[in-house]
Parts: sequence; C-alpha cells; structure tokens
Amino acid sequence: MTRRLRIAIPLFPRFTALDAVGPYEVLAQIPAFDITFVGHARGEVRTDNGMLGLVVDGRFEDLPNPDVIVFPGGDTRPLQSDARVLDWVRGAHASSTYTTSVCTGSLVLGAAGLLDGLTATTHWARYADLAACGATPAPERVVEHLDRRIITAAGVSAGIDMALRLTELLAGQTAAQAAQLLIEYDPQPPFDCGARPKATDEVMDRVREYDTPRR
Amino acid sequence: MTRRLRIAIPLFPRFTALDAVGPYEVLAQIPAFDITFVGHARGEVRTDNGMLGLVVDGRFEDLPNPDVIVFPGGDTRPLQSDARVLDWVRGAHASSTYTTSVCTGSLVLGAAGLLDGLTATTHWARYADLAACGATPAPERVVEHLDRRIITAAGVSAGIDMALRLTELLAGQTAAQAAQLLIEYDPQPPFDCGARPKATDEVMDRVREYDTPRR
Repeated sequence: MTRRLRIAIPLFPRFTALDAVGPYEVLAQIPAFDITFVGHARGEVRTDNGMLGLVVDGRFEDLPNPDVIVFPGGDTRPLQSDARVLDWVRGAHASSTYTTSVCTGSLVLGAAGLLDGLTATTHWARYADLAACGATPAPERVVEHLDRRIITAAGVSAGIDMALRLTELLAGQTAAQAAQLLIEYDPQPPFDCGARPKATDEVMDRVREYDTPRR
Repeated sequence: MTRRLRIAIPLFPRFTALDAVGPYEVLAQIPAFDITFVGHARGEVRTDNGMLGLVVDGRFEDLPNPDVIVFPGGDTRPLQSDARVLDWVRGAHASSTYTTSVCTGSLVLGAAGLLDGLTATTHWARYADLAACGATPAPERVVEHLDRRIITAAGVSAGIDMALRLTELLAGQTAAQAAQLLIEYDPQPPFDCGARPKATDEVMDRVREYDTPRR
C-alpha cells in the first residue's frame, strides 16, 4: 500500500471556519488523503467571531513537509509578520506537491514571498492587500499556477471549488467527482449575489454595516 | 436594542463537519444572530473520520429554548435512540421559530417525531432511513414546511443553501444576500456531479469504494 498523502491545514486565532472546513470536507472523502490541522500549539483556537472553536492537532514543526498545504483566511494580519509561520510556509512549500490558500490565506503565502510576480486571488474586499504583498489580484474564483505548484481561491466558500480541482490534480477526475457527490455539492443558492459585480447598492450598504465592526 | 436571536447547532461524536460549519458561516454574518454549539458535554468532539475536532460550548440543557435549531448529520444512529437528545429536540422545537436539519440530521428530527407525515430530505444515500422514521423523502435540496416551522436540507453542502433561505426568513432578503456576498458564495464547481442522477456508473463505483469502510 502506498503511503497516504499528507495534507496540512493551518488554524490560527480568528480564522474563518468555512475557509478551512470546506476544503477539508472535500479532501476527507478520499481515503488516501490524511488531513492534519496544524498551528502554533495543540488545542483550541476560536474563529473570527469567537462563536466556534476548532482543535489544532499538531504544531507547525510536527509537519514540516506536508504534500499539500491549504491555508485558510480570517484575521491573517498577525501571521503576515510571524516569522515562525512564514518560515514554515516557505519550508513546507519547498517540497510540497501543491501549496494552496482560501480567502485571505493568500496574504500569508504572499507575505512568505510565494506569490511574487504571480496572479492570485483572495476575498473580493481584499484585493488591495493582496497587491501590497507582491501578487497581481485576479478576480477569479480559483487561480492556479501549476508550474509553481500554487493555487489560490477567492473568499470563504471558494475553497470548496478549489478543493475539488485540487482533488482532481492529486487523485484524478473520478475521485473528485465521487467527492462532489458524497458531499452532495449541487449548489442551488436562493439568490445570485455571491460576487461583487452582482450586488446591488442596497446589499453593499448592508455588507458594510455587517462587516465593519468585526474586521 | 432587541435581543439577539439564539441559534443552537448540536455536535456529537462522528458528526459531519461541513453540515454544521456551512450553515454556521452563513448565519454568523448576521450580527443579530448568536450561535452556540451544543452537545452532551462541553469540550471536543471529533468528526466522522476523526481528523477534526470541534468544541461544544454548551450542554443541551444550557439552551432549552433556542430560537433556531440547525441539526447537522453524520453518524446519527446513536442519537436516534438517545432520550436526552430526543427530549431536547422536542422541547426546543415546541418554542423554536424554526427547527432545521442538514443531511442525516433529519433522521434525528424524525426520531423525535417531528417529521411524521411530512415530506423531508436527507443525504441522497439515506432516503430509506428517512422513510423509516415517518417522513416521506423528497429528492430536493431544501424542503420547507413553514406552517410546521421545519426545514430540512439534503446532504452536507446543502446546508449552505438552506441557511441562506433561513436567513431570508429570519432577517430578510437583503440580509441573506449580504451574507452570500460576504462568504463569496458564487459556486463554480469544476464538475456537474453533485446529485445522484448526474453520476456515471464509474463515479458510483468509486463512491461505493470510498464510502463503505467508513459508515
């Protein structure tokens, strides 16, 4: 039996839960994939709004050479100047098969120097921050540079789409389609308002009202 | 200031993470919603595959009267004969605004007697189990009975769509659209294989290979 492919998903204080759990749920359908949630220390970390805790099972140093990295977003600002995190990202990327991010997770890849001169994506409200760390923001749901082994996904829920593509790259299309069916990912949102160009002024006013106090 | 609306999301051993975290991430965008993860005891519970731990913050008894219940799926079999869980579901539903489920969470609502004579949905592979607990399975992504204050969602990722509809019911369409944009839910799956009728024989063979050892 071949060894299982090791996937590391970093968690940190004020991360965004779906950024991490969306890709996890896709990837977890594949028996050959072994997923570990890593962080500064084992134990609970709370999400951006404080209403949910997830458990870190391994320290960054416990998984120096994962095959795949999926870096979720959230309040990544402290991480962008955290030498321990950035050293781990650079070291892990040196030997990874794919290094990926969801939402503002790309700002951490950028701070580590991985996105210099590349197009990349992040949450629609954070393109300027992405540009500030050396990447060229592209308003796409998933941006891949297979020659550089880097894939970035747009905001929050985009990690699900990215993880299906990642599964295809790692295990083939049939595997990815089986994962899609197992999580019954046949999206039928009741509104078509999931991208910035689709939002009315009224929705944007509400977004600003909701978002301001928490970021 | 009006009091915040209290939303309870039960967690239990071998739950499915995205069933819980998808709706959580939608609902958490609304500042007026207060979400608590409840369970038998405070502390960590692990997912269906054991690769992730989430934290229960309150016991069932700490939240006897939530405004909204979102019951996720996973290995719900032990819960379907767990008097403490079923009593809580019945008691909470007596005064809830909406009682909802994702995936096999509907089997718990059914075991509590809430779905008697109603159409309802669950994961596509579990319609027979849903019928066995008194409901009539409907192959739809979200099934709502507003007069009975009950909404059930299909497998795993369907909870995101359900939660957007639930947000519309509780806080209005603009609020739900703002939540959709904040989580950038503009789905673009790379394949169209997320529903049973869309899957080829090859994909179904793979699904059986992946699914058998773990359920």
